[in-house]
Amino acid sequence: MISFENDYICGAHPKVMERLLEINLEPATGYGYDKYSISAKEKIKDAIGCPDAEICFLVGGTQTNQVVCDALLKSYEGVIAPTTGHVSVHEAGAIEHGGHKVIQLEANDGKINAGQLKSCLESFYEDETHEHMVFPGMVYITFPTESGSLYKKNELEDIYSVCKNYEIPLYIDGARLAYGLMSDECDVTMKELANLCDVFYIGGTKDGAMFGEAVVFRGVAMPKHFDAFIKQRGALLAKGKLLGIQFDTLFTDNLYFEIGRHANRLAKLMVDIFEEKGYKIAFDSPTNQQFVLVEDDKLKELEKKVAFSFWEKADSNHTVIRFVTSWSTTEEDVLSLRDIL
Amino acid sequence: MISFENDYICGAHPKVMERLLEINLEPATGYGYDKYSISAKEKIKDAIGCPDAEICFLVGGTQTNQVVCDALLKSYEGVIAPTTGHVSVHEAGAIEHGGHKVIQLEANDGKINAGQLKSCLESFYEDETHEHMVFPGMVYITFPTESGSLYKKNELEDIYSVCKNYEIPLYIDGARLAYGLMSDECDVTMKELANLCDVFYIGGTKDGAMFGEAVVFRGVAMPKHFDAFIKQRGALLAKGKLLGIQFDTLFTDNLYFEIGRHANRLAKLMVDIFEEKGYKIAFDSPTNQQFVLVEDDKLKELEKKVAFSFWEKADSNHTVIRFVTSWSTTEEDVLSLRDIL
Amino acid sequence: MISFENDYICGAHPKVMERLLEINLEPATGYGYDKYSISAKEKIKDAIGCPDAEICFLVGGTQTNQVVCDALLKSYEGVIAPTTGHVSVHEAGAIEHGGHKVIQLEANDGKINAGQLKSCLESFYEDETHEHMVFPGMVYITFPTESGSLYKKNELEDIYSVCKNYEIPLYIDGARLAYGLMSDECDVTMKELANLCDVFYIGGTKDGAMFGEAVVFRGVAMPKHFDAFIKQRGALLAKGKLLGIQFDTLFTDNLYFEIGRHANRLAKLMVDIFEEKGYKIAFDSPTNQQFVLVEDDKLKELEKKVAFSFWEKADSNHTVIRFVTSWSTTEEDVLSLRDIL
Amino acid sequence: MISFENDYICGAHPKVMERLLEINLEPATGYGYDKYSISAKEKIKDAIGCPDAEICFLVGGTQTNQVVCDALLKSYEGVIAPTTGHVSVHEAGAIEHGGHKVIQLEANDGKINAGQLKSCLESFYEDETHEHMVFPGMVYITFPTESGSLYKKNELEDIYSVCKNYEIPLYIDGARLAYGLMSDECDVTMKELANLCDVFYIGGTKDGAMFGEAVVFRGVAMPKHFDAFIKQRGALLAKGKLLGIQFDTLFTDNLYFEIGRHANRLAKLMVDIFEEKGYKIAFDSPTNQQFVLVEDDKLKELEKKVAFSFWEKADSNHTVIRFVTSWSTTEEDVLSLRDIL
Repeated sequence: MISFENDYICGAHPKVMERLLEINLEPATGYGYDKYSISAKEKIKDAIGCPDAEICFLVGGTQTNQVVCDALLKSYEGVIAPTTGHVSVHEAGAIEHGGHKVIQLEANDGKINAGQLKSCLESFYEDETHEHMVFPGMVYITFPTESGSLYKKNELEDIYSVCKNYEIPLYIDGARLAYGLMSDECDVTMKELANLCDVFYIGGTKDGAMFGEAVVFRGVAMPKHFDAFIKQRGALLAKGKLLGIQFDTLFTDNLYFEIGRHANRLAKLMVDIFEEKGYKIAFDSPTNQQFVLVEDDKLKELEKKVAFSFWEKADSNHTVIRFVTSWSTTEEDVLSLRDIL
Repeated sequence: MISFENDYICGAHPKVMERLLEINLEPATGYGYDKYSISAKEKIKDAIGCPDAEICFLVGGTQTNQVVCDALLKSYEGVIAPTTGHVSVHEAGAIEHGGHKVIQLEANDGKINAGQLKSCLESFYEDETHEHMVFPGMVYITFPTESGSLYKKNELEDIYSVCKNYEIPLYIDGARLAYGLMSDECDVTMKELANLCDVFYIGGTKDGAMFGEAVVFRGVAMPKHFDAFIKQRGALLAKGKLLGIQFDTLFTDNLYFEIGRHANRLAKLMVDIFEEKGYKIAFDSPTNQQFVLVEDDKLKELEKKVAFSFWEKADSNHTVIRFVTSWSTTEEDVLSLRDIL
Repeated sequence: MISFENDYICGAHPKVMERLLEINLEPATGYGYDKYSISAKEKIKDAIGCPDAEICFLVGGTQTNQVVCDALLKSYEGVIAPTTGHVSVHEAGAIEHGGHKVIQLEANDGKINAGQLKSCLESFYEDETHEHMVFPGMVYITFPTESGSLYKKNELEDIYSVCKNYEIPLYIDGARLAYGLMSDECDVTMKELANLCDVFYIGGTKDGAMFGEAVVFRGVAMPKHFDAFIKQRGALLAKGKLLGIQFDTLFTDNLYFEIGRHANRLAKLMVDIFEEKGYKIAFDSPTNQQFVLVEDDKLKELEKKVAFSFWEKADSNHTVIRFVTSWSTTEEDVLSLRDIL
Repeated sequence: MISFENDYICGAHPKVMERLLEINLEPATGYGYDKYSISAKEKIKDAIGCPDAEICFLVGGTQTNQVVCDALLKSYEGVIAPTTGHVSVHEAGAIEHGGHKVIQLEANDGKINAGQLKSCLESFYEDETHEHMVFPGMVYITFPTESGSLYKKNELEDIYSVCKNYEIPLYIDGARLAYGLMSDECDVTMKELANLCDVFYIGGTKDGAMFGEAVVFRGVAMPKHFDAFIKQRGALLAKGKLLGIQFDTLFTDNLYFEIGRHANRLAKLMVDIFEEKGYKIAFDSPTNQQFVLVEDDKLKELEKKVAFSFWEKADSNHTVIRFVTSWSTTEEDVLSLRDIL
């Protein structure tokens, strides 16, 4: 069955697989000290225009958020995040497992704004009892967000400016960064984004890699003995070269951006078909995730023919469902929706 | 200066001090195995009418909430609590330090209701991705609440009924239990309360003890090797007899209830004086905490003459301030407000 | 340069790579619910002869030990392990990060024995203050051990018998299980091993997989909501099918055992060459790791020609170095040592 | 029955009780910002001759060790401690609960020495895989030790010198500090001790207080927002003045030292009586704990007449038992041993 269930249904982009295969029998030292990892880091530093950035590779997104938040926060600090943020809802309490509170700000279309953030920080410090409260120690946002939306450049600037005033780092979860940066509605480049936050991660798992995320420390230094920190959390991949090879490939010949462009184009085509067939788009998304409102009877019918995912109940007999494109989606897959819908 | 700052400004009720002094030089075995601890537990079991309850004593309220939540929850579970609950805001992240999320429900006058709770639990289990979310593992409420309000008996019954349906324990934080139970507006007895939850704690620190809280396990068993669990959290008092002596005294000749009645009577007298002097009560409280709305200029004037605490900003030039009575407040203290206000 | 540095220098066994490539573009549901994961679990259950076993896949060894220990232990319990066990020395404190002590028993050739274990447990329970000590909650051993040695069947029986008497689970770390089971000196089959412990893991990372370990729960049930538990620790791989495909391949046509046999044969050949060239074997190992004693001058010379790893200083001018074979080692690699040594 | 069970069988020194009673009804601000806490800190700074030291008060010893170690260590670091150290054996895993390994060095008469320490640190840094091991982040010793012994001044100097070379803090657990400093065999003053470590705690619970320990940060600064850190661990006493009053009293008119002297004098008298009655002292102790070797039959007889504690089995029919004196022991108590033994 054709699947738009999510952007991690397949293995790796064929070019990534090809490289993994080529290098498969070449011995390499472990834990990220191999030449591919070193090369991948250089390519990423070029792509973001930050020669002084420090980079490490991890396996998955929740792991990355957990490791980064725990590394940036002091024990008594929490992370400010939108109510709909991945760390707030879909990591099974990974941040709390590290001992930290997720301080939730009401999200609007997946985003928070500088005003909310400022007011949260202000009222914290104004409260005379704040030594008995969780200190806001960093800010977490996603780009693009869980519902496919994007921060505008000036929105990021404003948020980052508040962070700087309060001297807390801004961390951007880029699980779907390729799809965000390549959106028609994106007004920020990768280089700009890198300079509008302190730490961010470049998603691999959902963006063409078999697995893997690249964490970039730019505005703050990578913590000392970070390998030990990662190892202690069971997150250090023995064959680090696997991560190096993948990111090296993704950042060769603009493959990463190509992947984003491809999926976004197909997402738009998909929206056209939905509208052509009289479906109602639940809310706009300029990236690779699209949300459609369907009657529950229709939903039952559709799920026999195509794979998608449940998003949320809209009312007693309507549901919002999600269709996702990725590097592995083909134009043929999308066009077949004409017959299926 | 006369102080209404909180209910833990003084040491211990004179009768408690007297007993501590009497027994001071009498050797006792440590860690709660002394005769006073055993006697105190028996008296509490009588007072709540639960011969099978299991009881342990801890030193303070945050410690108690942290130990109890961590003991009742599995690693991947969180505690449902009102947004204004002590565990949500004023424990510096103690629950998260134990690895658990506080799943916040919007509080109304310090309380949550059965409908909110049911809907939270329902939508959790309906969500197809709930294995990636924090499981709701218990419910936390306070009696009386942080803003002095009380749950009615039928409200507790409804909440407890939802808990039972979902097979999660209900835990009541009774930091100010004496003041709650002795309120004119309280329609639940201590015995009834004990049967309307699984675990609760009888506050000592704010209710006449020098320090100490008594945790009562009724609907669920006290966890195995609970001493080791407590010790591991740095919460096992070496001289356990100190806790035993205090609770034994509080539960002799109804002292605990006497203390509640005394403070509530003085709180009412205080409200009369506030109203007599033209002050606006910010919101009703039937217990020992009273909240008054004052202009900021007046506030500055008052704080030179009497101690109270900041509650919240009401608007740009008004503030809600809190006045608290306790076992240590005298009628004279309250009457002196006539001259001060 | 030819490398005997460890058994994770290369990618994956060619048959595993081939299958990953074949299935690369086939969409699958995430988190281990795909058909390959299901099939792999069935094949493993067949291989161990335990139809009721429950299996889950994780990414790496330290992660697996951390997840399993934390899942089997109560908060106040620790894991008994040999002083040389991976959890004792080489996981950067991953077990302690989960809140548990590693209770170390002096290892002899990488192993502990039933007598030591019994005496440790006996003296714990005899100690009147044991409620203030860390409860021994499980036993961890490795098969083969970090220094390449193997437990005999009767040794495992005796250890497991002590565990059963004290009602604590026995967990076997099988990071190099293929090499252990296929050793000439191994007198236990995989089926027998599965029945001589409660939980064990079948190593993939070092035994032919690109990455991945298969945890088998046999004597105790897999904990409830284990996915949430794993997710909360950042250890749930999104593309679970990758793990399924790999283990499915390893357990097809005895590939897993074939890999073990191959590496052990080459390890023996390597020992012959060492001895032929007059090197002193530091201590016997019947599996794929071999330990050689060299003068420090010789060491400096060798490391220009072949990759191996430092094991330990023997005295002021001798060092023990380690040479490891694996599925990726070729006979040619080993024979080339004749010229190099 | 007369009890030598431990040094926390009674409440508080009469002078401490007297002050608690005097100040009982005097309102004070909470959490350690009261005048008694401030005064106590000044007196302690005078007593140790460190005007720049920072001091905080906690309730109990295990809590103190847990808070201090967690505050001084980075996540991936552990604490080096003697095998017999309180943190190694009798805190139910409190250090591990904070995520840190206790790196044990074999104790000799309760002590470790600079040579052992240096060798442990050297071999850690020499090990090429140390990024996968627990970093030694601080050193913990007790003064006096759990078995009553004392470090000589030059031993402390040597240990501290190693710590300084490796830039890790030295922390001294002074649960029984009064008894240590006042021993005839002690060649270090309180002022000297304060300068021979970075952090130490002045025991109150066992040294005349009802409860409480004073943590002194001298060589390293008290961590920022330490109140929040303590609160998050459930360790912040609401009525902080109780701790202030007690330490203020103990450090008035040399009461703390007087208490130490008194108990040590009686301990010596006790030893004389043991020897006079033909008992064998198991090992020398110059402080308030004394260890006697008895036949098991004799033990059974003795425990009917006097309270003491089990220390360890010596052989199949002999046991070492412990007799402890304290501020609450009277000469009469000790002399009565003449009839009892």
